[in-house]
Amino acid sequence: MDDKDLQKYFDFFREIDKEKYIVRQTYLADGARKENDAEHAWHMAVMAVLLGGYANEKIDVLKTVTMLLIHDLVEIDAGDTFAYDEEAKKTQRERELKGAKRIFSLLPEEEALRMRGLWDEFEEGTTPEARFAHAMDNIQPAMLNAASGGRSWRERGIRLSQILERNKDTAGGSEVLWDYALENMILPHVASGDIVDDRQEVSGNEKS
Amino acid sequence: MDDKDLQKYFDFFREIDKEKYIVRQTYLADGARKENDAEHAWHMAVMAVLLGGYANEKIDVLKTVTMLLIHDLVEIDAGDTFAYDEEAKKTQRERELKGAKRIFSLLPEEEALRMRGLWDEFEEGTTPEARFAHAMDNIQPAMLNAASGGRSWRERGIRLSQILERNKDTAGGSEVLWDYALENMILPHVASGDIVDDRQEVSGNEKS
Repeated sequence: MDDKDLQKYFDFFREIDKEKYIVRQTYLADGARKENDAEHAWHMAVMAVLLGGYANEKIDVLKTVTMLLIHDLVEIDAGDTFAYDEEAKKTQRERELKGAKRIFSLLPEEEALRMRGLWDEFEEGTTPEARFAHAMDNIQPAMLNAASGGRSWRERGIRLSQILERNKDTAGGSEVLWDYALENMILPHVASGDIVDDRQEVSGNEKS
Repeated sequence: MDDKDLQKYFDFFREIDKEKYIVRQTYLADGARKENDAEHAWHMAVMAVLLGGYANEKIDVLKTVTMLLIHDLVEIDAGDTFAYDEEAKKTQRERELKGAKRIFSLLPEEEALRMRGLWDEFEEGTTPEARFAHAMDNIQPAMLNAASGGRSWRERGIRLSQILERNKDTAGGSEVLWDYALENMILPHVASGDIVDDRQEVSGNEKS
């Protein structure tokens, strides 16, 4: 037993407790309050365990779940950057890199490298696991936004083009799940006006 | 693509959003508020990914993490039962069985059986994964109770014998982690009086 390693692990576990205070822009399904990063990570991890079979390519589920569990830890230092805040997004990468450096280095060296590697892989988004993790990271808030009556979209005046831009790679993780989310979570809230419809040409069907 | 299955999955994902409202007796590390079941599950899942190598026996980490992610879902119906509330514990099993029946059956049948199987396995606590999951479920709150200055123990007048009884199988999941938790999280708070010392014979060393 290496007590020094355990000391480092538990320093890390105590530090990441702060993720429970990082509030996101997404309301919980009942709309009563916004969710925090730890709740978001838990919700996505459950989803990934159950939906992994819908990934376009075969994925290592544990690797995907681990990515989802840790990918927002950098926000302990960098704060949550709203997906549609273009100003904040300009400095996001720099702020998050600093956070990654500090937070993962609390761990024993080998684990620090492993976790940092998974975070980098998520950020790059080029492996099947990273692509599927990004799909979860986009579909989970869409599900909650829809469940809470489109409130977060409405309050921010979100346009359909912004949602489609944010989700341009979601089908790359899972075509099936993206189709489902578009059809069942997003388009109904375009129809109801919670999401601003800024398409040039609108087909009659989707608006009915 | 089976839309009916996806409908069931997402009904389940929306339903389990309620876990974010189930408040536990544990304070967050800074003592400012209590944590909820979703935050607790996330925290333990990260711990299991990183500490799995300390299990007494080789464990399937994904299985263990999945158990930890889902094992408190029954509390959406049954509520949180405080580990030291002997009255509430008398009806806990019955309340939780009802919850398990309702909540897991929202899923497509095969997945409902798989998740219910993992919940039963956790409850029985006889496999290496279930034993390690229980160790996480006990050590995570001990870590937070210690970090928040022993507040939850103090407020409830918790006695050392209660903690040892609750943790009687923790070493069965991981001897190394139980030794570490006892030495670094629990005994210092016996020494400081946050935990009532009800041992018949107290060795001089542990109180110094």
